[in-house]
Amino acid sequence: MSDMGITVKKAEDFSEWYTQVVLKSGLADYAPVKGCMIFRENSYAIWEKIQEIFNQKIKATGHRNVYFPLFIPENLLKKEEEHFAGFVPEVAWVTMGGDSQLEERLAIRPTSETIIYAAYAKWIRSWRDLPVKLNQWCSVVRWETKATKLFLRTREFLWQEGHTIHATREEADKEATEILHAYKEVMENYLAIPVLAGKKTESEKFAGALYTLALEALMPDGKALQMGTSHQLGQNFSKVFDIKFLDQNEKEQYAWQTSWGFTTRMIGALVMVHGDNKGLVLPPKVASTQVVIIPIPYKGVDADLIAQKTKCIFNELQENGVKVVLDDRQEYTPGWKFNQWELLGVPIRIELGPRDVKQRQVVLVRRDTLEKTIVKEDETKDAVTKLLEEIQNDLFNKAKMFLEENITTVKTYDEFKKVLENKGGIIRAAWCCNSKCEGKIKDETGATIRLEPLEKEEPTATTCVYCGEKAKETVLFARSY
Amino acid sequence: MSDMGITVKKAEDFSEWYTQVVLKSGLADYAPVKGCMIFRENSYAIWEKIQEIFNQKIKATGHRNVYFPLFIPENLLKKEEEHFAGFVPEVAWVTMGGDSQLEERLAIRPTSETIIYAAYAKWIRSWRDLPVKLNQWCSVVRWETKATKLFLRTREFLWQEGHTIHATREEADKEATEILHAYKEVMENYLAIPVLAGKKTESEKFAGALYTLALEALMPDGKALQMGTSHQLGQNFSKVFDIKFLDQNEKEQYAWQTSWGFTTRMIGALVMVHGDNKGLVLPPKVASTQVVIIPIPYKGVDADLIAQKTKCIFNELQENGVKVVLDDRQEYTPGWKFNQWELLGVPIRIELGPRDVKQRQVVLVRRDTLEKTIVKEDETKDAVTKLLEEIQNDLFNKAKMFLEENITTVKTYDEFKKVLENKGGIIRAAWCCNSKCEGKIKDETGATIRLEPLEKEEPTATTCVYCGEKAKETVLFARSY
Repeated sequence: MSDMGITVKKAEDFSEWYTQVVLKSGLADYAPVKGCMIFRENSYAIWEKIQEIFNQKIKATGHRNVYFPLFIPENLLKKEEEHFAGFVPEVAWVTMGGDSQLEERLAIRPTSETIIYAAYAKWIRSWRDLPVKLNQWCSVVRWETKATKLFLRTREFLWQEGHTIHATREEADKEATEILHAYKEVMENYLAIPVLAGKKTESEKFAGALYTLALEALMPDGKALQMGTSHQLGQNFSKVFDIKFLDQNEKEQYAWQTSWGFTTRMIGALVMVHGDNKGLVLPPKVASTQVVIIPIPYKGVDADLIAQKTKCIFNELQENGVKVVLDDRQEYTPGWKFNQWELLGVPIRIELGPRDVKQRQVVLVRRDTLEKTIVKEDETKDAVTKLLEEIQNDLFNKAKMFLEENITTVKTYDEFKKVLENKGGIIRAAWCCNSKCEGKIKDETGATIRLEPLEKEEPTATTCVYCGEKAKETVLFARSY
Repeated sequence: MSDMGITVKKAEDFSEWYTQVVLKSGLADYAPVKGCMIFRENSYAIWEKIQEIFNQKIKATGHRNVYFPLFIPENLLKKEEEHFAGFVPEVAWVTMGGDSQLEERLAIRPTSETIIYAAYAKWIRSWRDLPVKLNQWCSVVRWETKATKLFLRTREFLWQEGHTIHATREEADKEATEILHAYKEVMENYLAIPVLAGKKTESEKFAGALYTLALEALMPDGKALQMGTSHQLGQNFSKVFDIKFLDQNEKEQYAWQTSWGFTTRMIGALVMVHGDNKGLVLPPKVASTQVVIIPIPYKGVDADLIAQKTKCIFNELQENGVKVVLDDRQEYTPGWKFNQWELLGVPIRIELGPRDVKQRQVVLVRRDTLEKTIVKEDETKDAVTKLLEEIQNDLFNKAKMFLEENITTVKTYDEFKKVLENKGGIIRAAWCCNSKCEGKIKDETGATIRLEPLEKEEPTATTCVYCGEKAKETVLFARSY
């Protein structure tokens, strides 16, 4: 057992706790290549669930999935200068195929705007071809030099990237916003992670975008984590890649574009937000096992009866669409099993021993609070269904409360620094909209502007929190992953 | 229209016909990187369907999906010599990360045995940990130098690769065979492509395997296409990678392993086997659109009524789980739509014009035979359901008949060469089991042994078709993709 359990407390050494949970619950492992990771079955199952949910959403709104090549020729990546400059320090380059030196080196895609837009330029001719709404699920590579953090900072990670083309600016605006909402739903309604929505500042936006919308979550250590971004690309790329169409008046127009993505770092957020000292805590809607049934035979008393009853419960739950496992392995003790399934974060454990059989009852233990309830045998199914919903909601509400308690409004830079040091979290402050102040604050405190509100709010103060000039808007600062 | 339709006949220029169908039906396109391709929405939808079907099968038998890194360090790839030698001429190498030369170059995975088995060696300790049955869906890269053929020969393609670990040889045998059967079901019951099952010869087997099982399909041009392989790896890799476990007697054992894969080349096979002079023909079970409804208003007569009726049919079919599209676009004529949906291979077209409305009927046109049937309006749903099944079966049976008609048993080498030149297809012949004869035949005719029967059959002749020595078994030869 000793090497299975988590040996540090979440509140005491958050970073070590995180790594232990990720490794010991079989979510991930380090790879032989520095900076890379293995997505093991327990995390990949969550990713598949996210794929299923998001695919359903985007297909219902006319998006379709595709797969573009891994390799991008250097000259293509270079075409949009700002974009290239943003990515080139982190590109992994293929220079050899077999024994031969390549004539032009190939980038492993850090993102696929350039290769996809070269194809769009070929494919799109008329307004009848629009909108084009494609998405791909793939891995991307960014040659990070900072320390590896599983799910959060690795040289290769998994994501989806959507790339759409529209006839007008308004349609592209609408698409970028709708996707942001779809993201928010996945995160809040399934992962049970509350997020803040807003716009990135000029200096934080995607290289080559008109503007970037983003969602930010707050981690228990007070740092923000960017959960997804949706970019209105304007006509920047369409002009560079020559993506034009004939409109209904037979006039040539440059297309309006969006791109948007979220990544497997969401799984890291899931671990951090909900996990506890015993390991993972999974929201029922994304758990590939929602209920584990553990028979507890005591010195052989009623062993057959217990086996029979647990099998019955298993069948009933399975028939009702609950993802349930019956752990009747002989080679492990019930205590060992409790620990293992708690480590894995399975939302509900059902225990059944001789006393329960006699009293025609079962014991339900919820993973998030470890609270036990005894329910009548024939009410198991209803109790489980209800409890799964309750756990899903409670996890979200708890995280939501934490987020709200950790948004602090400040008026002065002193206050700003004090809050950042003592409490962390999100800091609401007035800003003059000058990127110089933004940069100074970042250099001096490590906090960046995570979001500008979507609708400009009245400033929380009349003057900028840094320079004291007239404030133009209220923005959200935080240190971040 | 002229650039939309297929301009050559399948029977006259098979290769050009294939390329036109693939490009014009929006299945795929060439990429800016030589030898690479774009999997467009119409092929990726088929791939997603294949994923859905196969995932369901393997998850039901305890397999789980994972994702291992794209990069494999050279020293790891080198560990199993035979394996390395088999792949090294085709490896794409990453040598730079950002501006820095890497200390050790990294292979883009050509297949993932080595990186996965290095992890297995870390993870597996005891018989309690077995079996391990993992699978991943990803792209792999093999730096082909031969001419690109979309879906069939590209430098990057999509596949699934399964990697399992077992305690005994028998269990690994069983796994390799069961997977072969699961593959066969996907190919025959969904893609409607009949396949032959058998074993690869020593010289054709996977580099590093004990033996390789394979499925072969026959293309209309008389060439065989390998559709999937399942390898019993024995203990070759476990000895090299040190994958050991303590058995129930606390004795250390090397693990037995399998690996297996199929690729997006199956989509190429689908095009070749079922397509015709008008384009794609999709089996209903893998078509993302099974039925298209096209209203045919005639000079405005009954236009509203037609619109209303087609909408009704659309709703009824959709409610019954049929994947249906109502193509009521105003900007295209019915004739243009017919051609487009035929090109895309949609199994059934429903037409509805003023006469049909009057007579309370609809016209069903099946894509495979282009045969028209008139059915009563209120029998549409049942007729469609029945016809979809019929098309699925007919496509399979037609391909099955073609396959059977093109397996020729020969006794002499002269006969062998004559059949190969004049008819092509699969040639059954007796063989002495000496790889020299196999090599000579390959050099002289281009035909290889595609399969040895799983159960040794009585030789079709007493002497080897090439050398005249005593024959040991009957095998299947063909030229292949």
